[in-house]
Amino acid sequence: MATQLTSKDIQAAIDMKTKPVGSLGRIEKLAAQIAGFQNTLTPRLETCGLILFAGDHGIAREGVSNYPQAVTRQMVQNFLTGGAAANVFARTNNVQVRVVDTGVYGEPIEHPGLISRRLGDGTENSAQKPAMSKPQLDMALASGAQLAGDGDFDALCFGEMGIGNTSAATLILSKITDESLKSLTGRGTGLDDEGLRRKLSILERAARRTPDRLSVEDALLEYGGFEIATMAGAMIGAAKKGRMVLVDGFIATCAAYCAQRMDVSSRDAMIFTHVSNEAGHRLVCKTMYVEPLLDLGLRLGEGTGALLAWPIVKSAAAMLRDMASFSDAGVSGPA
Amino acid sequence: MATQLTSKDIQAAIDMKTKPVGSLGRIEKLAAQIAGFQNTLTPRLETCGLILFAGDHGIAREGVSNYPQAVTRQMVQNFLTGGAAANVFARTNNVQVRVVDTGVYGEPIEHPGLISRRLGDGTENSAQKPAMSKPQLDMALASGAQLAGDGDFDALCFGEMGIGNTSAATLILSKITDESLKSLTGRGTGLDDEGLRRKLSILERAARRTPDRLSVEDALLEYGGFEIATMAGAMIGAAKKGRMVLVDGFIATCAAYCAQRMDVSSRDAMIFTHVSNEAGHRLVCKTMYVEPLLDLGLRLGEGTGALLAWPIVKSAAAMLRDMASFSDAGVSGPA
Repeated sequence: MATQLTSKDIQAAIDMKTKPVGSLGRIEKLAAQIAGFQNTLTPRLETCGLILFAGDHGIAREGVSNYPQAVTRQMVQNFLTGGAAANVFARTNNVQVRVVDTGVYGEPIEHPGLISRRLGDGTENSAQKPAMSKPQLDMALASGAQLAGDGDFDALCFGEMGIGNTSAATLILSKITDESLKSLTGRGTGLDDEGLRRKLSILERAARRTPDRLSVEDALLEYGGFEIATMAGAMIGAAKKGRMVLVDGFIATCAAYCAQRMDVSSRDAMIFTHVSNEAGHRLVCKTMYVEPLLDLGLRLGEGTGALLAWPIVKSAAAMLRDMASFSDAGVSGPA
Repeated sequence: MATQLTSKDIQAAIDMKTKPVGSLGRIEKLAAQIAGFQNTLTPRLETCGLILFAGDHGIAREGVSNYPQAVTRQMVQNFLTGGAAANVFARTNNVQVRVVDTGVYGEPIEHPGLISRRLGDGTENSAQKPAMSKPQLDMALASGAQLAGDGDFDALCFGEMGIGNTSAATLILSKITDESLKSLTGRGTGLDDEGLRRKLSILERAARRTPDRLSVEDALLEYGGFEIATMAGAMIGAAKKGRMVLVDGFIATCAAYCAQRMDVSSRDAMIFTHVSNEAGHRLVCKTMYVEPLLDLGLRLGEGTGALLAWPIVKSAAAMLRDMASFSDAGVSGPA
């Protein structure tokens, strides 16, 4: 087994490239992370997939979103016919999309392109009772890990779709971090001030059902998100398989936080791709000591931010692998 | 001739896409700019080239940089053999590179891949006399416009290489904007505090040679940069030809500023791709009322920031062209 490269080895290799020391800023840090994770000074990052997890939330029936719950299902159809933002960004950036039904409300959708990992007909309404059972959570984590191991990808983006899922993520994060429910609660798909007040009061009611602090597992059980739990399992699985994990916005960051707490080594694989406009996201990134790559005012989910960041991540690996060194190129260093 | 789309028409088309209104943030603004510039709701942005302008600066002999002047020439060789950061990012992101010698010091470089538009053997030392003559400037602007019209590209990135060129850009900008020389002067390739003091004192001496304010043409004549002047001409030419102009860091932004002042309509084509770590860049962007897309701590030049932003720009056009609308996809809007 190869010895582990030190960060000093990696930095030395980056500093020999034909450019002033440090002049590629964040790209150098990204390259160092990838090299460390792959344990090579010639990292390979060529192929990327997006796994898009869809699931419905019982709490949506309380009126936390301004979109009807049926939109989850409609958007799954849109993903399958290639019309959503995630599809367009994936095509533009050569990323292969897989769509997973983790528990969309209603009859199972029949489509040859859809991967079914249904855990139920949407989660329970977490304002009233636990969102999912222990067997459902175990199944979610296992399905995610298995899906993240499929195919031949050097990196994976993770996206989600689920009306009500900013509510689930907010509740989970309020129970496992030091941030308050209020500071984490945002406008989701675009609530107005009154909608935001209503959402917060519903979430406060749901939060009162359980102790102030919960373990990650209990928070997932209580407030759920089949797609969030499956994604957390997938992130752990991808990291174990040596694949870089491109983390998207608020919901995906919630899954990433859960994944890290369940398996700390998954952190090394994670690249936080953008900071979203959803209120709680910047806060959670700060709590996690991560500085996302992009700040484009996105708040769509679906993995869109991760897809936009993928070419930059790929470029960072290529920089370390393919750039000439001062000696290769016969270029003089500073005086 | 087609009537010009209004920004209202364009926004309406963006708002019909299957996503919450405004949820793609900067991507929506980019898409609107591209649609306005191309005057179509189905913008096409598929092919991109990088034109890399190299040139030497007489003022480099005063000791403004910590790299020897020979590095300009050595880096041109590196561009031609594909080993520089710009080459790597261009290959990763499917951008075709053209390298232009606008006046690298020494014998003309013989290489089949090099485009020669030499205006002299480096500029004159602008600490002592005007950097270039009127015929040289006219030729630079004309060469640039011609080069930007060549080939079949929907968009062009512009990069530069020239030891001493942050000095030239700083001097030019100090004469044509309200920003002070001191606030614009930065560390270039990585000066220490003493080097920065020395650079500022040399630039102050060079600045005293001419009146406090100069026209854009006079500023280019006095402080030059064959590569900066040729790039400014190329940006004007690209915009006239209907090509989007991806503006890189400090030097390219100086060229963009000059281009806009010489031909205000070129502004519509320009996308400011990143804010660099060179001190004056953030300031100039503010002066120009532009908010660059990326903030990655880059300070390399060569068009590297523009190359990293290209997939995002391309994705923005694809969003407007290819995403399904709510009615196409049968997706419900907000309640």
